Amino acid sequence: MRISELSRTGGVPIATIKFYLREGLLPPGQPTAANQAEYGEQHLRRLRLIRALVGIRGLSVGTAKEILAAVSENVDDTHQMLGLVIGARPVDKEKGEKEAEAEAGDDPLAEGLAEVDELLERTGWEVSEHAPAKRVIAETLTTLRSLGADVDWRTLLPYAELAGRTAVLDLDQLRDADDPLEQAERALVLTVLLEPVLLALRRLAQESESARRHGG
Amino acid sequence: MRISELSRTGGVPIATIKFYLREGLLPPGQPTAANQAEYGEQHLRRLRLIRALVGIRGLSVGTAKEILAAVSENVDDTHQMLGLVIGARPVDKEKGEKEAEAEAGDDPLAEGLAEVDELLERTGWEVSEHAPAKRVIAETLTTLRSLGADVDWRTLLPYAELAGRTAVLDLDQLRDADDPLEQAERALVLTVLLEPVLLALRRLAQESESARRHGG
Repeated sequence: MRISELSRTGGVPIATIKFYLREGLLPPGQPTAANQAEYGEQHLRRLRLIRALVGIRGLSVGTAKEILAAVSENVDDTHQMLGLVIGARPVDKEKGEKEAEAEAGDDPLAEGLAEVDELLERTGWEVSEHAPAKRVIAETLTTLRSLGADVDWRTLLPYAELAGRTAVLDLDQLRDADDPLEQAERALVLTVLLEPVLLALRRLAQESESARRHGG
Repeated sequence: MRISELSRTGGVPIATIKFYLREGLLPPGQPTAANQAEYGEQHLRRLRLIRALVGIRGLSVGTAKEILAAVSENVDDTHQMLGLVIGARPVDKEKGEKEAEAEAGDDPLAEGLAEVDELLERTGWEVSEHAPAKRVIAETLTTLRSLGADVDWRTLLPYAELAGRTAVLDLDQLRDADDPLEQAERALVLTVLLEPVLLALRRLAQESESARRHGG
């Protein structure tokens, strides 16, 4: 297809596609004439993945490029690829480890992180040692306690069980995607865009449950 | 207690407490001497609720004041009160209805909202007609389809079921609070602060589920 069709089908303006080509996020098309090139399905899939990384996950073009390079190296390893795209694991593993070491000395979250490890042991989940999500949970536990709430990892265990079932639904949505890049894009879109929906469903369910308990 | 103790126990600076007193968010204390007053447990509970509305839900002082007034009128109706504090229902019901009518003519979300109603009918949930969360879900369905994702309310039904169980856990956390204001504050803190935790748990569970399916 020509660049105009790539733009239309991919939902990305031509000027933006040209920028991605210049920056090396998209590989060049097959030249057909002076100033013209032919693009294939792989370009379209890659363009959609870039759109999701930049437009939906809100990454910089530089970070998107790093992730795309890592994705290209791991295209046969679905688990690695999904983790990179969703942000479950840092792109630069060594950097993540170095940062963690630097913090380990007097990390104010050390206590919270130990609790998260306790929680993960109970769930039996297999996750990256430096998964950013672990710090999010540790921070909130610390904040909640500073506000006087009586919570610890045990409070979160039943929530984690439900999150586990939610993740099974998420992964089920990816079954029909044949191409690895398509699967990566779909994983990213569903993970990020469903976030506000899951929180909205919880609010509605809370209202309904409150009506049931306290009379609406 | 004196204002200094109210500040220490409530975790709010004295200057901020004085501002809340001037703005009428907090009722005056019992005067004991010139420029001195005595504050009670009710002041403390109300102060904590203000802190949660302004600091955690991020509301303006004006909106917090409106909600506090509505809460005071509904202090014996736990369901109403929780809905107000969490934002499940608009404070000004008539305003909400008017806005909805104004939009009804050519609401770009009309199709999405009809789907949300279908979803709610299946779950059997009892929620406010103009709950803001309904629009969030309608918007995302519309966005996902514009990105080519094959989703509709049926996709969300199993997620809704899990959200329903999450809400049961949420409401269980409030059982031990005796005072209605304390219950309202705790509901708000847990609802809002657990949001990033629930999303982080989902990310970790996704990584683990991906490892299980695709080999980690």
